[in-house]
Amino acid sequence: MPGEFDFIRRFLHHFPKARVPVGPGDDCAVLAPSRGALCVTTDAVVEDVHFTRAGFSPADIGHKALAVNLSDVAAMGATPRWFVCALALPRDFPAAHLSGIARGMAALAREHRVDLVGGNFTSARELSVTITATGELSRPPLTRSGARPGDWLYVSGTLGDARLGLAHLKAGLKRGAAVRRQRRPVPRVALGQLASRFASAALDVSDGLAQDLGHLCTASGVRAVVELARLPMSAAVRRELGPEGALAGGEDYELLLAVAPGRGRAFERACARGGHVVTRVGVLSEGAGWVIHDEAGRAVRRPGGFDHFR
Amino acid sequence: MPGEFDFIRRFLHHFPKARVPVGPGDDCAVLAPSRGALCVTTDAVVEDVHFTRAGFSPADIGHKALAVNLSDVAAMGATPRWFVCALALPRDFPAAHLSGIARGMAALAREHRVDLVGGNFTSARELSVTITATGELSRPPLTRSGARPGDWLYVSGTLGDARLGLAHLKAGLKRGAAVRRQRRPVPRVALGQLASRFASAALDVSDGLAQDLGHLCTASGVRAVVELARLPMSAAVRRELGPEGALAGGEDYELLLAVAPGRGRAFERACARGGHVVTRVGVLSEGAGWVIHDEAGRAVRRPGGFDHFR
Repeated sequence: MPGEFDFIRRFLHHFPKARVPVGPGDDCAVLAPSRGALCVTTDAVVEDVHFTRAGFSPADIGHKALAVNLSDVAAMGATPRWFVCALALPRDFPAAHLSGIARGMAALAREHRVDLVGGNFTSARELSVTITATGELSRPPLTRSGARPGDWLYVSGTLGDARLGLAHLKAGLKRGAAVRRQRRPVPRVALGQLASRFASAALDVSDGLAQDLGHLCTASGVRAVVELARLPMSAAVRRELGPEGALAGGEDYELLLAVAPGRGRAFERACARGGHVVTRVGVLSEGAGWVIHDEAGRAVRRPGGFDHFR
Repeated sequence: MPGEFDFIRRFLHHFPKARVPVGPGDDCAVLAPSRGALCVTTDAVVEDVHFTRAGFSPADIGHKALAVNLSDVAAMGATPRWFVCALALPRDFPAAHLSGIARGMAALAREHRVDLVGGNFTSARELSVTITATGELSRPPLTRSGARPGDWLYVSGTLGDARLGLAHLKAGLKRGAAVRRQRRPVPRVALGQLASRFASAALDVSDGLAQDLGHLCTASGVRAVVELARLPMSAAVRRELGPEGALAGGEDYELLLAVAPGRGRAFERACARGGHVVTRVGVLSEGAGWVIHDEAGRAVRRPGGFDHFR
């Protein structure tokens, strides 16, 4: 198999030269100081946890590894700036698949104009890609703790599709919109930047709305009331998983946003102008925890969230 | 086993609260803009590649994971600022061992006043720790490409000890200075900062001096002549591995430095005052590649470097 330095060359070949004082190849990359505050996140995708090599192409894996990080940058309202990528590769990993990972990652990086500035290769028993990504803020960050009683709760896109896609992959289905959501999550970067002008709090829905709603409530010290009938679902999720499945979700990578009621309508108009689909799903109040009401106003059972350790 | 959020709490408990606008627990950490340029590196330690659970305590693993990153920051002459840590844990990983990893990492972080600002947990078949660390520069960075013909070549500390320590561990020896060098590499952070006032180029010796010397020569477009008799070795390495073993090395985490001849003596005096052990091992010239001379002035065979993929 090729050595580490062949791997590095093969991987970097797919990325444009980073516009930084020192890029990949030295002990560290060197970045000019940012003007605004810097947001930083690290997230990994691991074989047989976040993807399988049977169900994902190498380009899917490269895309997903970067997308889950950009989703965190989006949730702060930041503009993606640079990232580093640590790859752990099995000894028999084909060099052509490495190029595939780089291609999928580079395409998404180009779309968001974010520079790969450094990385690392190591051997390992299983394939994993660990990325650290940064974004720059031009406004105060959208934290999880800024929501206030009375704020309206919004969710972007639709929920449950990635969960459905995982079920489809496990059932041997290799195509379709749900499978694509599982393989190619879309980080809501532009929406996050837009939301930074309106929202009081945000987070990305990666563990399922049910669980991530709990994080928002805990961090902000508020209570949430969500209307089950308002949950945005694709026709396939509505039919195959129902609202409980959409709530449990996992790997949605949509944004959950709290917006002060006086800003809600302006936020909705700005989203419509920008082509961003957001749905008002509930409201925050004084208190703690959260409750979900069905159409008759009855509280429904809470599904568990998505935890890779369980 | 505990869930992801219990793991996070248990891990963070060992670190002081980061002095940043937003620390661990949100989608991203938020860092105020740095004054100087930022150096960034990412490096991983993987079970059965960089450590074994039989030969390393959890605290050793935590130490080593951060040390190999700080060594890259040191090689740029930067001051460590913050890091993020992605842990991949087997499903049966004992919670007490997680605390051990955190303790070893936190002790080294405290020593270098570098803040843990975020992280990620995922499950995996094998244990690995991937860190992204940054440093701030107050002078131009020490790149690999700044060396010039005529520069003197220096190496810090001694070479080959970590290689010897690995051999000792494989032979069932669990104690001794060499084993400690393998388990607890010392990042030469203070030396890197001092060297930024004198050196034209630097890198950290992680793949063995033989290989890393090649990187310096290639990046700077120079040729190196190294005197075998000058290689700094501990008595144990001299006895058990000899100079060829010291050259092949691997995981030394010493600094290789090029210093203009007019600055050499001042650099040596500054090192002596600061308590840093550096040894002049050779000189750079016009040309490419490198050669090692024995005491009779004859070129010696080049040992291969250390490549986890081979």
